[in-house]
Amino acid sequence: MSGSTDRSPALDTTHDPALRSWVAAGNDADTDFPIQNLPFGRFREADDPDWRIGVAIGDQILDLRRCGLINHADMNRLVRLQPDTRRALRLAISAGLREGSAQAARWAETLVPMARAELALPCEVGDYTDFYIGVHHATAVGRLFRPDQPLLPNYHWVPIGYHGRASTLRPSGTDFRRPLGQIRPDADAPPRMAPSQRLDFELEMAVWIGRPNAMGEPVTLATAEDHVFGLGLLNDWSARDVQAWEYQPLGPFLSKSFATTVSPWIVTLDALAPFRRGWQRDADLPQPLPYLDSAANRAHGAFDIDLEVTLQSAAMQAAGLAPQVISQSNFADAAHWTFAQLVAHHTVNGCSLSPGDLFGTGTLSGPQAGQQGSLLELTRGGREALALASGEQRRFLEDGDRIALRARAQRAGHRSIGFGPCTAVVLPAPALNPERP
Amino acid sequence: MSGSTDRSPALDTTHDPALRSWVAAGNDADTDFPIQNLPFGRFREADDPDWRIGVAIGDQILDLRRCGLINHADMNRLVRLQPDTRRALRLAISAGLREGSAQAARWAETLVPMARAELALPCEVGDYTDFYIGVHHATAVGRLFRPDQPLLPNYHWVPIGYHGRASTLRPSGTDFRRPLGQIRPDADAPPRMAPSQRLDFELEMAVWIGRPNAMGEPVTLATAEDHVFGLGLLNDWSARDVQAWEYQPLGPFLSKSFATTVSPWIVTLDALAPFRRGWQRDADLPQPLPYLDSAANRAHGAFDIDLEVTLQSAAMQAAGLAPQVISQSNFADAAHWTFAQLVAHHTVNGCSLSPGDLFGTGTLSGPQAGQQGSLLELTRGGREALALASGEQRRFLEDGDRIALRARAQRAGHRSIGFGPCTAVVLPAPALNPERP
Repeated sequence: MSGSTDRSPALDTTHDPALRSWVAAGNDADTDFPIQNLPFGRFREADDPDWRIGVAIGDQILDLRRCGLINHADMNRLVRLQPDTRRALRLAISAGLREGSAQAARWAETLVPMARAELALPCEVGDYTDFYIGVHHATAVGRLFRPDQPLLPNYHWVPIGYHGRASTLRPSGTDFRRPLGQIRPDADAPPRMAPSQRLDFELEMAVWIGRPNAMGEPVTLATAEDHVFGLGLLNDWSARDVQAWEYQPLGPFLSKSFATTVSPWIVTLDALAPFRRGWQRDADLPQPLPYLDSAANRAHGAFDIDLEVTLQSAAMQAAGLAPQVISQSNFADAAHWTFAQLVAHHTVNGCSLSPGDLFGTGTLSGPQAGQQGSLLELTRGGREALALASGEQRRFLEDGDRIALRARAQRAGHRSIGFGPCTAVVLPAPALNPERP
Repeated sequence: MSGSTDRSPALDTTHDPALRSWVAAGNDADTDFPIQNLPFGRFREADDPDWRIGVAIGDQILDLRRCGLINHADMNRLVRLQPDTRRALRLAISAGLREGSAQAARWAETLVPMARAELALPCEVGDYTDFYIGVHHATAVGRLFRPDQPLLPNYHWVPIGYHGRASTLRPSGTDFRRPLGQIRPDADAPPRMAPSQRLDFELEMAVWIGRPNAMGEPVTLATAEDHVFGLGLLNDWSARDVQAWEYQPLGPFLSKSFATTVSPWIVTLDALAPFRRGWQRDADLPQPLPYLDSAANRAHGAFDIDLEVTLQSAAMQAAGLAPQVISQSNFADAAHWTFAQLVAHHTVNGCSLSPGDLFGTGTLSGPQAGQQGSLLELTRGGREALALASGEQRRFLEDGDRIALRARAQRAGHRSIGFGPCTAVVLPAPALNPERP
């Protein structure tokens, strides 16, 4: 198996669907974290000031330093491992967690129940870039603004992206306040400052950069995947009314920078090897320029990952109603480009990527009803309300709403693996101008 | 004296134009660094692996730890000092560097000649935001694209900005390669990958954030300046052909992220107190919303700083020709908003700022010929070539061109202060697709 798109991503013993762990919950059929997954994260217990590096297995976390596999707690250092070393580490973890492993007794003492652990962002993020590779999302949103030309002429040529705000990235479970912002709901009146009235979620995947490149040294498509440590989920909360007023000519700014929720576990590309898929561009569309094209990328550059969004309002929670599924899609169906293409494009100008840098993919909507990854699409810009099981309606998010993203890679003949939670609740906006000068 | 716009920024003994230093070069009429300035930076000598914090005085650097004023070398910690503590430190530095100071003999032993020092970015930058507050620049550039509506409707209401790339910020003196990128010079032909043919500079000021705010807690205009440690210069190198093709709908990305040059010295708002100016918006334009308006900001929120750009081609350097002045402008004349307004706007949605975060102002052009802060404006989009003293012409930058930005605050009755160099040379692009997959 290899992380490079120029080599065939063969499977190894860590992917064997028959593997079972001595951690009992790791063998549950519906766990996100069977022994075939082994995602990395940072955790601590309530009485512990320091973050540690762990691997999720069932409902437990294996402490990688206490079980002797690494000698530090710096995830930004771990993610820059050479691909061969990274795979050797995965093999060692897999071997030690298997039923019958000689390490079982000693490693069992290092386990921390997830229920007792706090989880951090997996890395310290230097730079966060948000892409826009969900072609059905881009088409649907473009149609709201430009019915005659939903996709701009550059869309099929350029993996569109922009720089995001790193300081407000938060791990799943961190609630956040509805943002204040300049909005102009009436084009004939001046803008005003108010809590956003069109608050939305965006279903995205997260890409965690591992190995760096030097400034001025583009990464070629052939080696691009060696720079990707793994994947997660990302909710790019968006204030649509702020965005509509502020975004020209330099793009989204305060409409996105108030909060971005990220799942705390990094599912490695190694773990996702069984779920690769070919990548192609429809024959009637422009084909990629040479720096974004290779036989290997076409053969197995994409990943088959099922995605789901649930909404649970405060009233639903109070009434004991379960979170309601409002969207289901698939990453490979939604994405116009592969991760390797994103890395090759991002660095072609000489831009340096650093260990722990984060990419968002952009909203991953499918082409059909019920597959849209944002309320903007689900309610057609707020025109068609969504009915909730509580009898409530939603055009955009209300205070107390909880949005949860889920992802699962599944394929016949393979053990399916999940990504863990990516959840947050919308809190009321702060007071307007509390200390008006 | 105070850093807050709600209090009157009175002067103190550190601003006395009669002050002289026992460091002789600090008394030169044309030095950027007289004793009235005292900017902070990070430096090291050739044989030293570690960065240290210093203050520039004439042609020397005072080592703040070795002279006993601080006990660390972490600028991100120093910039978050409370305003009163920050001013007490400035008073102590000023007293020790004065002619006749009892510290003179001991402190003289800590001096490092600038000629022997390497300078770093002054802080480790978490997030970098680039604004667009140069109204004459926005008007001139807008006119190239939209002759009938140069400024978009939001421009007078919203301090337009976008997130920038932190990983490619470099201190003055770091040369960089011309970027490769997707360009589409012929709209009837497909785009192609090539070295940028329309490489440009942008004359901007840099704003260094000191004290942080918590996520979800907007900073009011009344206290906004307490979060600004000081100012510098910034060259936002731009690939205009890449930008024109990529920027819709999410703004500039690879056209800006290949390199950004920053001056290494932070000139504090304390040092700039004598150069404050009132801020106002022309009566026929929209006035700011309440969160961006206060009597104090109108009374003294702006800063009077003269700006200059020089270009020296490789041929000019070889022929012994001096750098040629190609632009001169003034910050207060060019800027549509004050620094305090930028902080209040950036945080109004709850976005957290961190110590060491960086803002660029956007290009600071004046309204007249010879005052434009980019070649895009100086050559009207490349249509009118600029004549160089060497007989060469420039529409956009050529390999080997050296661009230097300079800034100086000067006012009758006060000692003028400067910002030091912000310079870099354009190197040839890397080979195209060196490892074509």
